[in-house]
Amino acid sequence: MLLVFASAKLMAELFERVGQPGIVGEILAGVLIGPHVLGWLAPTELLTTLSELGVMFLLFRVGLEVKASELMKVGGTALLVALAGVIVPFFAGWGLCAMWGEPRIESLFTGAAMVATSVGITAQVLASRGFLDLRASRIIMAAAVVDDVLGLIVLAIVSSMAKGKVNYLDIALTAGLALGFTFFVARFGTRTVRRVMPTVQASLRVGESEFALAMTLLFALSVLAVFAGVAAIIGAFLAGMALSETSEGHVTELTNGVAELLAPFFLVGIGLHFDLTAFSNRATLGLAALLLVLAVLSKFLGCGLGAIGMGRADAIRVGVGMVPRGEVGMVVAQLGLSLNVIGHNTYGIIVFMSVVTTLIAPPLLKLAYGNAHYEHQDYVRLG
Amino acid sequence: MLLVFASAKLMAELFERVGQPGIVGEILAGVLIGPHVLGWLAPTELLTTLSELGVMFLLFRVGLEVKASELMKVGGTALLVALAGVIVPFFAGWGLCAMWGEPRIESLFTGAAMVATSVGITAQVLASRGFLDLRASRIIMAAAVVDDVLGLIVLAIVSSMAKGKVNYLDIALTAGLALGFTFFVARFGTRTVRRVMPTVQASLRVGESEFALAMTLLFALSVLAVFAGVAAIIGAFLAGMALSETSEGHVTELTNGVAELLAPFFLVGIGLHFDLTAFSNRATLGLAALLLVLAVLSKFLGCGLGAIGMGRADAIRVGVGMVPRGEVGMVVAQLGLSLNVIGHNTYGIIVFMSVVTTLIAPPLLKLAYGNAHYEHQDYVRLG
Repeated sequence: MLLVFASAKLMAELFERVGQPGIVGEILAGVLIGPHVLGWLAPTELLTTLSELGVMFLLFRVGLEVKASELMKVGGTALLVALAGVIVPFFAGWGLCAMWGEPRIESLFTGAAMVATSVGITAQVLASRGFLDLRASRIIMAAAVVDDVLGLIVLAIVSSMAKGKVNYLDIALTAGLALGFTFFVARFGTRTVRRVMPTVQASLRVGESEFALAMTLLFALSVLAVFAGVAAIIGAFLAGMALSETSEGHVTELTNGVAELLAPFFLVGIGLHFDLTAFSNRATLGLAALLLVLAVLSKFLGCGLGAIGMGRADAIRVGVGMVPRGEVGMVVAQLGLSLNVIGHNTYGIIVFMSVVTTLIAPPLLKLAYGNAHYEHQDYVRLG
Repeated sequence: MLLVFASAKLMAELFERVGQPGIVGEILAGVLIGPHVLGWLAPTELLTTLSELGVMFLLFRVGLEVKASELMKVGGTALLVALAGVIVPFFAGWGLCAMWGEPRIESLFTGAAMVATSVGITAQVLASRGFLDLRASRIIMAAAVVDDVLGLIVLAIVSSMAKGKVNYLDIALTAGLALGFTFFVARFGTRTVRRVMPTVQASLRVGESEFALAMTLLFALSVLAVFAGVAAIIGAFLAGMALSETSEGHVTELTNGVAELLAPFFLVGIGLHFDLTAFSNRATLGLAALLLVLAVLSKFLGCGLGAIGMGRADAIRVGVGMVPRGEVGMVVAQLGLSLNVIGHNTYGIIVFMSVVTTLIAPPLLKLAYGNAHYEHQDYVRLG
């Protein structure tokens, strides 16, 4: 734990010194101490759990700063962004692999992996710079939630195709449950919390009852999210958002402590999976490079076009913000391997694409948001 | 995780409602959901790690509220308390088992297990009631640190006896290293931090640099402590104490978040180990009951007598505060099992003793500290 934490912070410091986002340094720390460079550390079950907790707390903390009502306002654009951000990368990934001569199901699965969006990295960058309440940031957060649900549906379809027969009823049920859960919590969460929380809290005698209730809600919604088929981090984000209008600074501070401690485990954890051993021949390397370029362009163009109605600057921000695939892409690759629909090579390519898209997003975000600080002040003054 | 956290907080609430310490409720939650009652959960590697992190953060947080200089002031009394609190329980445990007809080495080992002190529980109770700066509390904290080192030496001697030959040089080296590390960090930690920290921190550009540095120090000292042979929690406590004079409220708040989240895992973890299956016959049950009584009395009388110079009220508080064996007793039992010096029965008895002494300490502390709030005000006014 010392190794993970200290190396992450050391690399973050180095990166901040040369004017780069520290978050990239933390991921590279994972690459560096990971099995394929220095070999000091390999992913373990414990590190994986800490890393999952880390991204859950990141999203929970972001949720605490986002009001559901504000997210609903940009709902239409977010839906467009999410839809385009699912369709374009899916067909781009599928098409490239099919043209490359990969087997049909492997191509489809690679397309599904291209759909994944890891909003953790973007959210962390935006939160640390205080950009969360800009319009583009809200669109990103809302689109990421929708994207996760849509990605789940694509994955369910492709997985059932891989298993031989497509059960449309099953898929419809999965989709319905995921959509229902997400919509219900996003729509009624805040209201319920606002009504129930003060009464419950006033009746409690245990110490730090507000934090205890917040943690219980966080864990409960994360577990429910997994049952409903969406990612635990979406549950964590929804829990934070449901609490955002009632909770005071104290819960945020306590949450910050946990998030600050665990975030490096998430970031280093991503880096630890970086692996070039699959790229033993030039053909694989070529496919990996092309897929990486397509992964960046398809999300950027797809999501950017979805948000073009908001003006060019916001469209660019949204496009860049949706690029990182992070741990979601890796989970999809893992699933493909366990279902036996992709080989070791394709697994390596998807993980490579997930790590690199995650690494390049923070500096791109920095460029895209540029001098948003001025805008921010205008926004606050006007809005 | 939801199960652990929610059940702990639920039981804590129930206990607070009937006027009992919530901490006891959290341990009983572990007993309840554990393998021997409801069977919902068994200790896993992950839960063990979270539980270890939990007690580390508890002790770190307590350390942040304790100044090394204040601890040094009560050093003489603390030394007496720790010495008596090691000698009396050791001979009581050894004597009882020997009279009961247990094998020599098993009796000696049980004596060594009686020496263990888990200061986590006491520290948590005192901290939550704001009693940490009372004289008795300081004696307890200082004595617990010394006690851990002495306990290590007793354990080293008994373990090497169990292995056949006693290597006095080895034991002297172990003792010297442990004493040296503890003394060095306690004596010079604060000073070093006060000199080095502001310079380092001012030169850092990474976000939340103070918290990052504090966490690095916490992990580093915990790891070093384990290398030096003392418990990781002693390292965590020393790290907190070294930072206590320089750190501001912000680090404390962030630490509180982590401690609040992880403490239930520590408490539930203790309860999860509660096991009565070893007590299949009356003889074992009798020995367990007698040993439990002796465990409470020997620490209470030993430590109490060590602090009698401070007056009767403080002596009682110190005596009660040193009673819980908690996770330290369990670690010793585990070691005995792995060295093959104790059987399953003795293991069960030691774990039983560790859990029950931990359960009864909080209500006893509540009694012993009674109306210390008035005294507290006097103390602050006068001192």
